Amino acid sequence: MSELYDTIIIGGGVAGFSAAMYGGRLKLKTLVISAVRGGTIILTNEIANWPGIKMTDGITLAKQIEDHALEYPDVSVIDEKVVDVEKSASGFMVKTDEGKSFESKTIIFATGTEWKKLGVSGEKEYTGKGVHYCALCDGYFYKNKEIAVVGGADSAAKEAILLTQWAKKVYMIYRGEKIRPEPVNLARVEQKVKEGKIEIIPNTNITEIKGEAKMTHVLLDKEYNGSKEFKIDGVFVEIGHIPQSQLAAKLGVNLDRKGDIVISRAAETNIPGIFAAGDVVNTKFKQAITGSAEGVLAVYSAFEWIKKD
Amino acid sequence: MSELYDTIIIGGGVAGFSAAMYGGRLKLKTLVISAVRGGTIILTNEIANWPGIKMTDGITLAKQIEDHALEYPDVSVIDEKVVDVEKSASGFMVKTDEGKSFESKTIIFATGTEWKKLGVSGEKEYTGKGVHYCALCDGYFYKNKEIAVVGGADSAAKEAILLTQWAKKVYMIYRGEKIRPEPVNLARVEQKVKEGKIEIIPNTNITEIKGEAKMTHVLLDKEYNGSKEFKIDGVFVEIGHIPQSQLAAKLGVNLDRKGDIVISRAAETNIPGIFAAGDVVNTKFKQAITGSAEGVLAVYSAFEWIKKD
Repeated sequence: MSELYDTIIIGGGVAGFSAAMYGGRLKLKTLVISAVRGGTIILTNEIANWPGIKMTDGITLAKQIEDHALEYPDVSVIDEKVVDVEKSASGFMVKTDEGKSFESKTIIFATGTEWKKLGVSGEKEYTGKGVHYCALCDGYFYKNKEIAVVGGADSAAKEAILLTQWAKKVYMIYRGEKIRPEPVNLARVEQKVKEGKIEIIPNTNITEIKGEAKMTHVLLDKEYNGSKEFKIDGVFVEIGHIPQSQLAAKLGVNLDRKGDIVISRAAETNIPGIFAAGDVVNTKFKQAITGSAEGVLAVYSAFEWIKKD
Repeated sequence: MSELYDTIIIGGGVAGFSAAMYGGRLKLKTLVISAVRGGTIILTNEIANWPGIKMTDGITLAKQIEDHALEYPDVSVIDEKVVDVEKSASGFMVKTDEGKSFESKTIIFATGTEWKKLGVSGEKEYTGKGVHYCALCDGYFYKNKEIAVVGGADSAAKEAILLTQWAKKVYMIYRGEKIRPEPVNLARVEQKVKEGKIEIIPNTNITEIKGEAKMTHVLLDKEYNGSKEFKIDGVFVEIGHIPQSQLAAKLGVNLDRKGDIVISRAAETNIPGIFAAGDVVNTKFKQAITGSAEGVLAVYSAFEWIKKD
């Protein structure tokens, strides 16, 4: 083996590079291993909720945080995918898809989540241009517009309710007969239906997303108001997330029932030397700013853990 | 009574205005009551640890977050000091030092802490120009310099250890005979003393801080190396904080033994409808970014609490 890192941060999004920046400040030998520089935030066109910045975009914000971290001489990054993490004599051994191995005293999982996709034509093309995956990230831009939420689970219901804060009307397009949120949220949806703010379109799937520069309408697999063509300003796909917590789980890290990594207020997992931050952890309200703060807490906890000896 | 607010945020620092910004996004009728716009961060000259900004100053950062919050039509601010908070029929009644009363469904304490001051001549003049109160905020600027930490408690020891990451040498100036950190930190200090990185100057007080544009030396009440004049690049005053949690405590909010407000991972206190964020809460590692994230979580929890009915 070559050098031993103080911390290896898996994931090069907002949480990962925020952790790395403080790793640099704390003079920890820090390696970020990043499959996708910037993480999922780079899919977001308009960001108005990073405190202090009235408007930016995901690529710009992610790059600023990355550049900030890479200012510090003890911080480095490689663009590879981590395929395995094992316990080792000095801490942990991390293996990448290019066959490289790196050893570290501590690990920070900042691996994020992947939004489940509809998998229909036009979805990728109009992502950020009418197709969204996060109501709180992007809902504000649909003031007095008509939008659709795809999905019928609790998260979809909550996203639909949240979107009524801005939108004139929210359609919930759901493949099943009846949406199935938690009772309290079902009651809230029903109230919004009464008020004419939410309308449920059951037993229906979107088969294609169409538009020009921006999305203009979707195609349904069933007629609605006499047509399969459904004009709408935006679509929020809320059919679930896949937290990227598999490698953590393999090491014995506790997950909650959604598969999110459970952390303490100091971003510690149940396994000594393993910390976690960002969309992969069990934060009630996952935002860029909360992930960034968790990254900072994670690397500080790593620092304390290393220095305790 | 006039209008009923959804949330009143007490404190106009980074945490408070971060909460207010999201309050605006969530369309909560939000009032910030601020005794000092910007909070304690405005005392910090050089800020290099806000993710994405390589270098700024406290006044600029605080103002950006405040301006961002005030973009939202549902957010307003008044510059008064809160002198009392009581439970009321609709939630809480907040009273200010100018005799005004405001009623709100929820309260967010973002009241911060006050650093205990030495109370010597020159301290105020050189604050941010050699005199500091936060090692992690400002320590990075003392690479290869000689600095002093004033204090002998656990927090002073931890700050001194942290400062050895950057400084060539750290002097701990302590009024007592023996510093009194927790054993684990005492051992770490002793190790640093062996390495020549920390030197303890016991039974000594600083009586004055002197300099020109920047601090250059301090006066001691006892000779050190044959002189009461002690040349040093910077002084970190670590004689304690006073969390501004008295009003919260009066409402029955749980504090820890330091007087910090105890919050959940979602910034909830033990009292329904009361949330808290920033330097006044029991975060292990209090930074601007962690306070900002706590503010965001606090107002989202307030939003959920209001909407649950």
